[in-house]
Amino acid sequence: MAKGILHYEVGEQVDIHLLVKSSTKGIASNGKAFLTLFLQDQSGEIEAKLWDVNQGDETIYGAQNIVKIFGDIHHYRGRNQLKIRNIRPANKEEEVNISDFLETAPLDKEEMNDKITQYIFEMKNPNIQRITRHLLKKHGAEFMEYPAATRNHHEFVSGLAYHVVSMLDLAKAIASLYPSLDTDLLYSGVILHDLGKVIELSGPISTTYTVEGNLIGHISIMVNEIAKAAEHLHIEGEEVVILQHLVLSHHGKAEWGSPKPPMIKEAEILHYIDNLDAKMNMLDRALERVKPGEFSERIFALENRNFYKPLFLK
Amino acid sequence: MAKGILHYEVGEQVDIHLLVKSSTKGIASNGKAFLTLFLQDQSGEIEAKLWDVNQGDETIYGAQNIVKIFGDIHHYRGRNQLKIRNIRPANKEEEVNISDFLETAPLDKEEMNDKITQYIFEMKNPNIQRITRHLLKKHGAEFMEYPAATRNHHEFVSGLAYHVVSMLDLAKAIASLYPSLDTDLLYSGVILHDLGKVIELSGPISTTYTVEGNLIGHISIMVNEIAKAAEHLHIEGEEVVILQHLVLSHHGKAEWGSPKPPMIKEAEILHYIDNLDAKMNMLDRALERVKPGEFSERIFALENRNFYKPLFLK
Amino acid sequence: MAKGILHYEVGEQVDIHLLVKSSTKGIASNGKAFLTLFLQDQSGEIEAKLWDVNQGDETIYGAQNIVKIFGDIHHYRGRNQLKIRNIRPANKEEEVNISDFLETAPLDKEEMNDKITQYIFEMKNPNIQRITRHLLKKHGAEFMEYPAATRNHHEFVSGLAYHVVSMLDLAKAIASLYPSLDTDLLYSGVILHDLGKVIELSGPISTTYTVEGNLIGHISIMVNEIAKAAEHLHIEGEEVVILQHLVLSHHGKAEWGSPKPPMIKEAEILHYIDNLDAKMNMLDRALERVKPGEFSERIFALENRNFYKPLFLK
Amino acid sequence: MAKGILHYEVGEQVDIHLLVKSSTKGIASNGKAFLTLFLQDQSGEIEAKLWDVNQGDETIYGAQNIVKIFGDIHHYRGRNQLKIRNIRPANKEEEVNISDFLETAPLDKEEMNDKITQYIFEMKNPNIQRITRHLLKKHGAEFMEYPAATRNHHEFVSGLAYHVVSMLDLAKAIASLYPSLDTDLLYSGVILHDLGKVIELSGPISTTYTVEGNLIGHISIMVNEIAKAAEHLHIEGEEVVILQHLVLSHHGKAEWGSPKPPMIKEAEILHYIDNLDAKMNMLDRALERVKPGEFSERIFALENRNFYKPLFLK
Amino acid sequence: MAKGILHYEVGEQVDIHLLVKSSTKGIASNGKAFLTLFLQDQSGEIEAKLWDVNQGDETIYGAQNIVKIFGDIHHYRGRNQLKIRNIRPANKEEEVNISDFLETAPLDKEEMNDKITQYIFEMKNPNIQRITRHLLKKHGAEFMEYPAATRNHHEFVSGLAYHVVSMLDLAKAIASLYPSLDTDLLYSGVILHDLGKVIELSGPISTTYTVEGNLIGHISIMVNEIAKAAEHLHIEGEEVVILQHLVLSHHGKAEWGSPKPPMIKEAEILHYIDNLDAKMNMLDRALERVKPGEFSERIFALENRNFYKPLFLK
Amino acid sequence: MAKGILHYEVGEQVDIHLLVKSSTKGIASNGKAFLTLFLQDQSGEIEAKLWDVNQGDETIYGAQNIVKIFGDIHHYRGRNQLKIRNIRPANKEEEVNISDFLETAPLDKEEMNDKITQYIFEMKNPNIQRITRHLLKKHGAEFMEYPAATRNHHEFVSGLAYHVVSMLDLAKAIASLYPSLDTDLLYSGVILHDLGKVIELSGPISTTYTVEGNLIGHISIMVNEIAKAAEHLHIEGEEVVILQHLVLSHHGKAEWGSPKPPMIKEAEILHYIDNLDAKMNMLDRALERVKPGEFSERIFALENRNFYKPLFLK
Repeated sequence: MAKGILHYEVGEQVDIHLLVKSSTKGIASNGKAFLTLFLQDQSGEIEAKLWDVNQGDETIYGAQNIVKIFGDIHHYRGRNQLKIRNIRPANKEEEVNISDFLETAPLDKEEMNDKITQYIFEMKNPNIQRITRHLLKKHGAEFMEYPAATRNHHEFVSGLAYHVVSMLDLAKAIASLYPSLDTDLLYSGVILHDLGKVIELSGPISTTYTVEGNLIGHISIMVNEIAKAAEHLHIEGEEVVILQHLVLSHHGKAEWGSPKPPMIKEAEILHYIDNLDAKMNMLDRALERVKPGEFSERIFALENRNFYKPLFLK
Repeated sequence: MAKGILHYEVGEQVDIHLLVKSSTKGIASNGKAFLTLFLQDQSGEIEAKLWDVNQGDETIYGAQNIVKIFGDIHHYRGRNQLKIRNIRPANKEEEVNISDFLETAPLDKEEMNDKITQYIFEMKNPNIQRITRHLLKKHGAEFMEYPAATRNHHEFVSGLAYHVVSMLDLAKAIASLYPSLDTDLLYSGVILHDLGKVIELSGPISTTYTVEGNLIGHISIMVNEIAKAAEHLHIEGEEVVILQHLVLSHHGKAEWGSPKPPMIKEAEILHYIDNLDAKMNMLDRALERVKPGEFSERIFALENRNFYKPLFLK
Repeated sequence: MAKGILHYEVGEQVDIHLLVKSSTKGIASNGKAFLTLFLQDQSGEIEAKLWDVNQGDETIYGAQNIVKIFGDIHHYRGRNQLKIRNIRPANKEEEVNISDFLETAPLDKEEMNDKITQYIFEMKNPNIQRITRHLLKKHGAEFMEYPAATRNHHEFVSGLAYHVVSMLDLAKAIASLYPSLDTDLLYSGVILHDLGKVIELSGPISTTYTVEGNLIGHISIMVNEIAKAAEHLHIEGEEVVILQHLVLSHHGKAEWGSPKPPMIKEAEILHYIDNLDAKMNMLDRALERVKPGEFSERIFALENRNFYKPLFLK
Repeated sequence: MAKGILHYEVGEQVDIHLLVKSSTKGIASNGKAFLTLFLQDQSGEIEAKLWDVNQGDETIYGAQNIVKIFGDIHHYRGRNQLKIRNIRPANKEEEVNISDFLETAPLDKEEMNDKITQYIFEMKNPNIQRITRHLLKKHGAEFMEYPAATRNHHEFVSGLAYHVVSMLDLAKAIASLYPSLDTDLLYSGVILHDLGKVIELSGPISTTYTVEGNLIGHISIMVNEIAKAAEHLHIEGEEVVILQHLVLSHHGKAEWGSPKPPMIKEAEILHYIDNLDAKMNMLDRALERVKPGEFSERIFALENRNFYKPLFLK
Repeated sequence: MAKGILHYEVGEQVDIHLLVKSSTKGIASNGKAFLTLFLQDQSGEIEAKLWDVNQGDETIYGAQNIVKIFGDIHHYRGRNQLKIRNIRPANKEEEVNISDFLETAPLDKEEMNDKITQYIFEMKNPNIQRITRHLLKKHGAEFMEYPAATRNHHEFVSGLAYHVVSMLDLAKAIASLYPSLDTDLLYSGVILHDLGKVIELSGPISTTYTVEGNLIGHISIMVNEIAKAAEHLHIEGEEVVILQHLVLSHHGKAEWGSPKPPMIKEAEILHYIDNLDAKMNMLDRALERVKPGEFSERIFALENRNFYKPLFLK
Repeated sequence: MAKGILHYEVGEQVDIHLLVKSSTKGIASNGKAFLTLFLQDQSGEIEAKLWDVNQGDETIYGAQNIVKIFGDIHHYRGRNQLKIRNIRPANKEEEVNISDFLETAPLDKEEMNDKITQYIFEMKNPNIQRITRHLLKKHGAEFMEYPAATRNHHEFVSGLAYHVVSMLDLAKAIASLYPSLDTDLLYSGVILHDLGKVIELSGPISTTYTVEGNLIGHISIMVNEIAKAAEHLHIEGEEVVILQHLVLSHHGKAEWGSPKPPMIKEAEILHYIDNLDAKMNMLDRALERVKPGEFSERIFALENRNFYKPLFLK
């Protein structure tokens, strides 16, 4: 398989297919139009400028088109840029598909689905189990495709499901060390906590926020869904309120979007598990691109810190 | 009618019936039990100590009993206290009822109900009108009885309905000056914004928070109720999301319990109307007890400020 | 009348007179000078670049000149820009006046003056009335011309007076619902609260801050003016302190520039009325440019939120 | 002279005259009235309880009376208390005066007055000199008597003048090391910065805030005074604005009560000099009562820190 | 073994030995001295008042004495209190030891020591291993005895070692799920992070802060110790700086006492592991005392939240 | 000597040698490379663009080369820029040295060294004196060369020593007015407080942070150095802890990088002296470039304020 765009060094020549992730028109100081392109493959994305474009170019090189590019890598303001020497649309015979250019979770869907099904199977409280199973079934197709966010962490195809699977394993490991934790609540909380994102976000490609996502948010969306599921399944009892609370409070603080802070033990731990998995994902991805003895780029969602890779770590 | 307990001056003698609002046992330094009573009538409440009590006294002078007290008013740490010289339970022949001792909204229920019905009648958007009417009908009985809060503002019988009626009049006055405001959204937002309190709070007397109130809160409770109402009435369309947003955002900021800030114009104004009416209620009640040239007590919900009543205002 | 510059669509041709609001020289990457122009008419303002200018151009196309432009509208970084194809100074015969290009309050000065005079006439406390009338007379000419701010809200000719008139009507409506409010204090507070802006700001066109505005600020300037007015009118008594307090505290909190928070009831409400009118002005102006189903630009003075215009509102 | 009340050890007997600083009535658990007295002499103040008092006692032992007390020192909740065994009003023959019991600045008034006069004499800018001299003359009598605050620092008779004299010496020392500082502005800023306290506070004994102090504050009061002084002396020019700015900004930040932060160099340094002298005063007074190897009480105005006196400092 | 003092119900009679944890003298309103005692056994502590004490009693019932008490349990201001009917010092024949009354970690020292030794044995980097082993040996005796804090979490004998052992197991479980984590750094960071507490705190009983603890703090103390250990062992290289950074940053933010935030991946995760284990300890201890359907007391170190124990959890 | 680059007016011609401080490559909109140069002499630095460069140019005009430039001064976005008309490397015969272009402290090293030696000589406590002398000797060479920071204040050759000398003089002046201050602690605190910067920073030219500087910081570095010095000199006793505390706390608050706030009097004053000297340095340098009646640029480290130079100050 071709080398990913992120693995080219400054000065290297590039001659590969890439997917146009976004394309924005600007006017240069000479009065002519140009396009700022973000081009991606599975390794990540890179910026490029296309100068002196006409109206046709705007369409041909718009978002979600695949292009063939010849050029080389420059360094500009602390980031790599791709200098385009030649560009053309991919043609039919080249047999390239959008999915070949999208970053995807490292586990495949069946495997993830099996793991989650197994965790649901292990639940002992029938109310919690039925609500969880019902909601996962209702939104399962999108759940398996969506990213966990538009940026920051798990922002790739199936990122939502992958985040949930990692959190389930983490929940199991922690609960085995602290046996006072209720695994039904932890597992159900993990599975449902971000499920509202399938309504908050537009989908797995060029992800944006929906109107409902902007005005209500994935937390309140899922709290509503739990209420409706309970009504539909004729489930009454404190489990409904507790599951709603787990989802409601998983951001940890009002300032971070949770109208109530965690007030049951498993809600507090769920918040921690969510954070820990998201941070590991961000740290691994940032440090992957860094050599020992160097600092990473600043990571916005980690208070804009940059992280150092020690020399003695291989 | 008898003079209210709050209108007695320091040094005056008291010989009236009062309702025990709360009764807490303590142990004095001489080892004997005593009760700290909060006694109320419609004018407000006052603290009193009952010394040297036995187990029977704890029952007889427990919360929600009516008592006859002879005593006088002292000043202690900046507040009036009632020094009990004689106390006994009210007897049957005295024909006193709990409701005679509870502070109640200055408008009666029929009048408030008529006003609210009229505002709903004026709505033009049928989706908004039907959801509002459905939810008010579903929770109408409690809505007419409940206070708007456990303390700070409108913390009296029917305080919730009274707060809503005042806000509706204010909404109408403001909308007539700023005609770009949509009155359907404003009126519906006003009526629904705090309606979740009938589930969040325990009831009109000795009000506390329910488990659901603590873990979910009145905002999310009502957002759920709107979702269920829309499903039940087969209403789809943006009105549902917008009404949910109005309720969700009415505290104005994440730190104040709204997971989303106001993002439509009427939501922003609803937040203002809610605040303005709550503040007027707090200010009027605090300044009522103050003479020109004096400062009020510090008002916790107004950043602990104390307010001055100018000398030249009668 | 000609179509306002803000009402042209992207791609449309433009051939109109505009006023140069500001003109800033830069050096392009080819080493030649260019001007960044902000051009305005009563509908608003638009940015344009004028390339390859010489020293004479800097003068001819400097601020407060009127120009005739032929060009078209582009979209650049989320905002419209005017691409200049031809530009020349307006000539005498075209009979264009600066005032034709300035955005102005929707009420004319006489009407606003009459309304304010009427409100002063309704005051019952002679001290309050005389101080208010004296200061309005002293600064009346500028008061009728100045904007209420350099940006954010009411930033147009006579914006200050228009803001005051709207607030007076709002004060009257609110006071009629909450009769414990003293209208003398409210009306005087409204009229005086921002009057110091006639010293803080440079004037109605290309408004900037004066040295006194920067170092002292309109709040303290007006508190001084009230002190001097009282001395001049031989008025003593608490009214002077209270009026100073109303002005001093109208920003509500120390962090927002008020050295004392509101500590009388009318000061608290004045702060609310000021905010409500400013926000309505900002919201109306932002949403005017937006179609149903869209979000407005982010509004800096509203915590950088963007606002949604629901689909079902016409 | 008698040993000061603060210098008695726990367990020691006391038999001295003290001034009643404040006297507050309470009701004990046995139903009888008692007084909480704060008693002072020049060394400081101590709390005492007087049990079983009658109405006459309230008058005899009210604030600003001198009493003769026999008792002993106890330790209670981290502070010393005076246990009263015998108390009586001082009698005529004992020839005790209130001023003998008040803490006073360590310099006498003439000395302080001479120093300040000398600093004014050294000013070179006539506008600054005349305004400073005029305002000091106008408020000089109170200035020489008032404390600098009700608590925290320089809260003793003539504390205001003493604080100013210390700051003037500090200003001179700093200006000699940083010759770009303008001494006229520094000296005038020092003299005027807190002069508004003679209107903000009630006087040198049992100091409280006046209504004007509460609603306007000493900063705005003095800014007004400078405006009136300039008008009276027919002084125009930037000196007036700059002096107002020095006073206005001397608390350093909006949150600390300055509507504008320092925006001229001498204003920034004035803020520092004010802080440094206030902190030295607080630290010296707190550490005076502490032995090497101990921590002081927590000092509220120093972020509630407690300070350690190293063992190796004598 | 006798029932622990925390397991008595309100109204029950008590006739047991207890250890005096602290004893503070006060003066009652009748002028007589009393003692406020905190009495403890391994189940926890309870408050009691001892009235009318003489000087001998202060010594006999001072801290770290064992007493025999007959009395009963009362409820006072939301907490249980022990009402003393009879109290006497324990006598020799009763064979009671202080250690029988102290709460201790649930694992014994040998077991904890073995586990930690095993983790050190597993380290692969010799520099990290040697520094860790050296410092643990140097401070091992205190490390095995000290609590992890004076209050909030693991505030019992050997709490520090127990906290470390739990964190090591957690670190191992997490590292097995995220294999990019370096276990040498994690294990060493866990073992050293709080080791400075053996200098910061006074010891395992009646724990207070030392002067060095107050002025320098356990974080900087241990950073110094690492520097000295490296010098002593002649170790140079980045491992020294990285270990210092792990300790330095483990509070996560400047506001929480870390002069640098975590800037290597294992430092970030160490902070999380520390928090997670501390919170589990606090939550388990708070919820142990609560029945299903109830809320716990407010937990200060968890932002003063109280936690709910769901009804459906046994 | 030649006129400094900062003293040229807009429009003036320039024909001088300058040192390249930094050189960053960019790609212009025409696809050609250009360099953004920061050029400096002792008066300060100026930006310039060098268009159409080839690979050789990048080396010739890289950082730390001296160049001869002919060009003129433009004004661009509120700052001066140097427009290059001709540029060439300096040649051997021109006898220019890097040190001629670096801003340097206004005192020479010998003079500064003598002053500091004298202050150490005046110390009376032998432990404090020996530790101070030892550490200054150990790091003396770098101490005399390093800047005090990479930007904001004293960011020039020998800036660290110059900052220390100014602070020593200030400490002496303040201690003479407040004789309770211990000059040994003050002088030692001043000398040691920033000495860790010789390890935190890379050196006097093109200063950056070292890895140890980033991960540990100059405060903790110097605390370690004091610990090691004490061990080496066999000094025990509270002086060691107190000196560590002085360094540790000199940033004043946790948020500003001090893990402990000042808790001894001299630590509090050291923090003040440090601030005062840094601010005077920033203010003098910012106002130097401003004419009376103008505002300075915004100063980032002074909360982004801009400062006004009054008209009446020459």
